[in-house]
Amino acid sequence: MTDALAPGRVIGILGGGQLGRMLSVAASRLGYRCHIYDPGVAPPAGQVAEYVTTAPWDDAAALTEFAASVDVITFEFENIPTATLVLLEALRPIRPGRRALAVSQDRLHEKEFLQTLGLETAPFALVDSAEALERAVAQIGTPAILKTRRMGYDGKGQARIDGAADIQPAWDAMQGAPAILEGFVTFSLEISVIAARGLSGEVAAFDPGENLHKSGILHETRVPARVSARQRSDAVLVAAKVLNALDYLGVLGVEMFVTPQGLIVNEIAPRVHNSGHWTQNGCSVDQFEQHIRAVVGLPLGDGGRYADVVMENLIGDDLDRLPDLLRAKDTAVHLYGKPEARAGRKMGHVNRIIR
Amino acid sequence: MTDALAPGRVIGILGGGQLGRMLSVAASRLGYRCHIYDPGVAPPAGQVAEYVTTAPWDDAAALTEFAASVDVITFEFENIPTATLVLLEALRPIRPGRRALAVSQDRLHEKEFLQTLGLETAPFALVDSAEALERAVAQIGTPAILKTRRMGYDGKGQARIDGAADIQPAWDAMQGAPAILEGFVTFSLEISVIAARGLSGEVAAFDPGENLHKSGILHETRVPARVSARQRSDAVLVAAKVLNALDYLGVLGVEMFVTPQGLIVNEIAPRVHNSGHWTQNGCSVDQFEQHIRAVVGLPLGDGGRYADVVMENLIGDDLDRLPDLLRAKDTAVHLYGKPEARAGRKMGHVNRIIR
Repeated sequence: MTDALAPGRVIGILGGGQLGRMLSVAASRLGYRCHIYDPGVAPPAGQVAEYVTTAPWDDAAALTEFAASVDVITFEFENIPTATLVLLEALRPIRPGRRALAVSQDRLHEKEFLQTLGLETAPFALVDSAEALERAVAQIGTPAILKTRRMGYDGKGQARIDGAADIQPAWDAMQGAPAILEGFVTFSLEISVIAARGLSGEVAAFDPGENLHKSGILHETRVPARVSARQRSDAVLVAAKVLNALDYLGVLGVEMFVTPQGLIVNEIAPRVHNSGHWTQNGCSVDQFEQHIRAVVGLPLGDGGRYADVVMENLIGDDLDRLPDLLRAKDTAVHLYGKPEARAGRKMGHVNRIIR
Repeated sequence: MTDALAPGRVIGILGGGQLGRMLSVAASRLGYRCHIYDPGVAPPAGQVAEYVTTAPWDDAAALTEFAASVDVITFEFENIPTATLVLLEALRPIRPGRRALAVSQDRLHEKEFLQTLGLETAPFALVDSAEALERAVAQIGTPAILKTRRMGYDGKGQARIDGAADIQPAWDAMQGAPAILEGFVTFSLEISVIAARGLSGEVAAFDPGENLHKSGILHETRVPARVSARQRSDAVLVAAKVLNALDYLGVLGVEMFVTPQGLIVNEIAPRVHNSGHWTQNGCSVDQFEQHIRAVVGLPLGDGGRYADVVMENLIGDDLDRLPDLLRAKDTAVHLYGKPEARAGRKMGHVNRIIR
């Protein structure tokens, strides 16, 4: 604990959405205070944090003042501009570090990184022109998905290609941004492992969750996932390999496809992850607290699961079901404090205890 | 739900200690924002609330401004000055209401109120002079405890009487404050029921917890309590009776002694209660959220327990054990963000899942 930040010290969080909000609450349980930095006015995380800075990512003065007011910096999303990170990391430690961000900000780097670790990924090819896309489709086949290399989130910046007619529209949809074409993987289910690595190098993983998507957005995560003991330990080992290779500090989410040939890594997210929200009601230490522990240098907690849980996202007008959800048995409701329910907007989630 | 406050509205909380802090976090889960009012600088609850007012209880301007900024008012402790309540309740609803506070602020009124409901209490007598104390000791016997009628908290304002020699010192310890003498009750264990009553009159109770005190301060609460099914339902009925008689809105804690003659009510607390902290890790809806639901007019949640829990308070230098507690299996640590660990000061608690 000698290297740990003392309770009462301040954690800076880049991004003030629901993940920053739940990180802030978890930090409070351990006695830390939080300072949220977000370009948007009245970020949800600001409602439960002691300090909030509202300023753009390129406001050097605001960033410098923010850094001076905190003891360590973490983030709730991976697409923070590089110049912002360069400025901040000269002033305070950023955890997890730049390497993890660099890898995960670019789908091509991410896939190449995973391959260097001997991990399986979907087939992919770099696409930087309509001609390159044609070659890539010929190589990988259809169906396939064209994705921008950077700034992808919840199915945005993606176009599906089922045949030749889709090639030009797909490329146009990228608006000139460098992209990669990913082949489809035949899988029986998608799982994700939420795992953490601490300052002393220890790794702790939560039980894999089984994910169900709707319209490209996570709809539901169930634990335990319907996988064998072998698949479960394989999945945890994949996450541990990634954490160690990145000399990682904090929580990381790894999405994987379960196939007859073994696990195929879909993507990694260098942060707390939507598919780990079930831990709030299934574990004594949830993913948000685990992340804060790693970031401040405390020992990781016991990630053991003591309940089966189904997490369901509340998206857009799913909130209309709130009256029933509030009355439902064994159901924990978590709302994000966002002012308006727009289509596709994550408004909250529920964790249902299964017993 | 038509009478419920819309998410995004503001709940005013009088008192910014650990209970206000955990209420604020629970409110955030339901999408509400909080405004803490506390005379002390930098109250713990302010670290997780959007707004904080630091002003004395008799600052009419600050109270008026506070009331104007919130939609409903609740509190984390019962000893709020009457003038403060009078001012506030003319401006915004206070939940639970004045009646519950009036009863619980005065040990004599509380005991008389419980008796009117047909509930058993320890023998007691009003004591307003050294002579009255002598008569009361003759009537009730020893050992007995002399307690100030008002403002008692965690064993303060109390003096034990084992014999005639203790009478004068006990009275002196009251410093002239009106007091009551309470006889001892022979009990097998102390339990408490945390129960809530909502706007539509519905009542929900958590499983009784079994309490262990050390030096007059709660040390540990275990659920399930070692009581029979009959005692358990009796205990819940006692709480329901109190809630209904007070036309109560919110969570109430009732401490009871289990005796061969039945349950004897020790005291009621018109607020979330230390002995209900276990609900944070044993139930999908904890006592703090249940209170917020009642206060804003949402339906009460399912208070069903899905895990056995032992809650232990961390008092003063108990914090020295933190490194071990953070590593312990199935253990959830909750710290209160208080700057210094003074003797007798509640610094946090841990919930241990028993499985």
